[in-house]
Amino acid sequence: MVNLSQLMENEVFMAFASYTTIVLSKMMFMSTATAFYRLTRKVFANPEDCAGFGKGENAKKYLRTDDRVERVRRAHLNDLENIVPFLGIGLLYSLSGPDLSTAILHFRLFVGARIYHTIAYLTPLPQPNRALAFFIGYGVTLSMAYRLLKSKLYL
Amino acid sequence: MVNLSQLMENEVFMAFASYTTIVLSKMMFMSTATAFYRLTRKVFANPEDCAGFGKGENAKKYLRTDDRVERVRRAHLNDLENIVPFLGIGLLYSLSGPDLSTAILHFRLFVGARIYHTIAYLTPLPQPNRALAFFIGYGVTLSMAYRLLKSKLYL
Amino acid sequence: MVNLSQLMENEVFMAFASYTTIVLSKMMFMSTATAFYRLTRKVFANPEDCAGFGKGENAKKYLRTDDRVERVRRAHLNDLENIVPFLGIGLLYSLSGPDLSTAILHFRLFVGARIYHTIAYLTPLPQPNRALAFFIGYGVTLSMAYRLLKSKLYL
Repeated sequence: MVNLSQLMENEVFMAFASYTTIVLSKMMFMSTATAFYRLTRKVFANPEDCAGFGKGENAKKYLRTDDRVERVRRAHLNDLENIVPFLGIGLLYSLSGPDLSTAILHFRLFVGARIYHTIAYLTPLPQPNRALAFFIGYGVTLSMAYRLLKSKLYL
Repeated sequence: MVNLSQLMENEVFMAFASYTTIVLSKMMFMSTATAFYRLTRKVFANPEDCAGFGKGENAKKYLRTDDRVERVRRAHLNDLENIVPFLGIGLLYSLSGPDLSTAILHFRLFVGARIYHTIAYLTPLPQPNRALAFFIGYGVTLSMAYRLLKSKLYL
Repeated sequence: MVNLSQLMENEVFMAFASYTTIVLSKMMFMSTATAFYRLTRKVFANPEDCAGFGKGENAKKYLRTDDRVERVRRAHLNDLENIVPFLGIGLLYSLSGPDLSTAILHFRLFVGARIYHTIAYLTPLPQPNRALAFFIGYGVTLSMAYRLLKSKLYL
């Protein structure tokens, strides 16, 4: 019988679970950051969102875009575009029986790179800070994909 | 030997599979909604999409944006931003051996909140309907992340 | 004891892992394509990205949008919107004990359709090439969702 708690006794899988939960929670923080800037700067995308700030034409002036809000949204979308492949490839990689220390190195680099990417995007830090953070995360995911396909290709 | 069908005999995992499939199918419906509004309102993003509605300059007038289409697209992106963390954290949470009734409560609340979010976004209902739906889904995912990290943290 | 390497000896799961890794790697390629067009066409979204091309007002002229870049970004977002449901539903479907040849047919059709979708979007090919590719991928995911819910519904 499969005892699921034993799947969670696998160290690589537990490490994947921990790092994934952290990086996904960080991504969820971007929603809060967007909401924070929308409310403090009164910048909204939907008429019903600014109904509390005035009636009719007076409210419509808050339907606009703002550099700061757009920046957070771009950072959020970039997170989605990079964390989704990590989620899928990382899960399958974790199940493919990799070496524990190699796997943890991959996970740590990825999570560190994505946190640094967010800091570099939101501060903003001069390039190539953000580009570097992006490429480290990208490279980690490709490295896991390569190891997975090399050992387990089945088409 | 791992008999995979036994993984699917785990009740928490089966419940996660069912609710996830429902919420992902709901998200896929947003693509259909976007296509529906694009075709009925003749609002396109690509020149090749409106070639059937006229030639040359006549077709270019359909390359525009429309409030209704943009609203569906924002709802779709919000789904992506929230369902991706649910997918990752929920899967790992389901494997971490949670209490069945607690787990099902989490899944039901999340799926209900996301369906209500879509209704509130597309109708549109006045705020705070949509904000409330958003925060319930957000809170459920954070609650699963907290329980997962509390019981299985491995860094 | 669960021996994880045995999960990877399940042929359906190995096939899912291989096709998923390929389609996610393809999706990651879209980031590179965006970066390529941004750099060769000097079209940027952030002031810090074009600092290397000039100072002050001279750099600001590169903060613009470009048809080609926007096209790649739309293709990338469409990938996200379709590959995320495939990832979640496909994983659960793979674990639900489907027939091997049926499962592989689903995976091959999906991956082929998404690769063709990208080619049709970036070339661009006249419609209905892209629409057809979209609907094949969409139909494959719905078919897996249907089979999963039919055999394993637990609410």
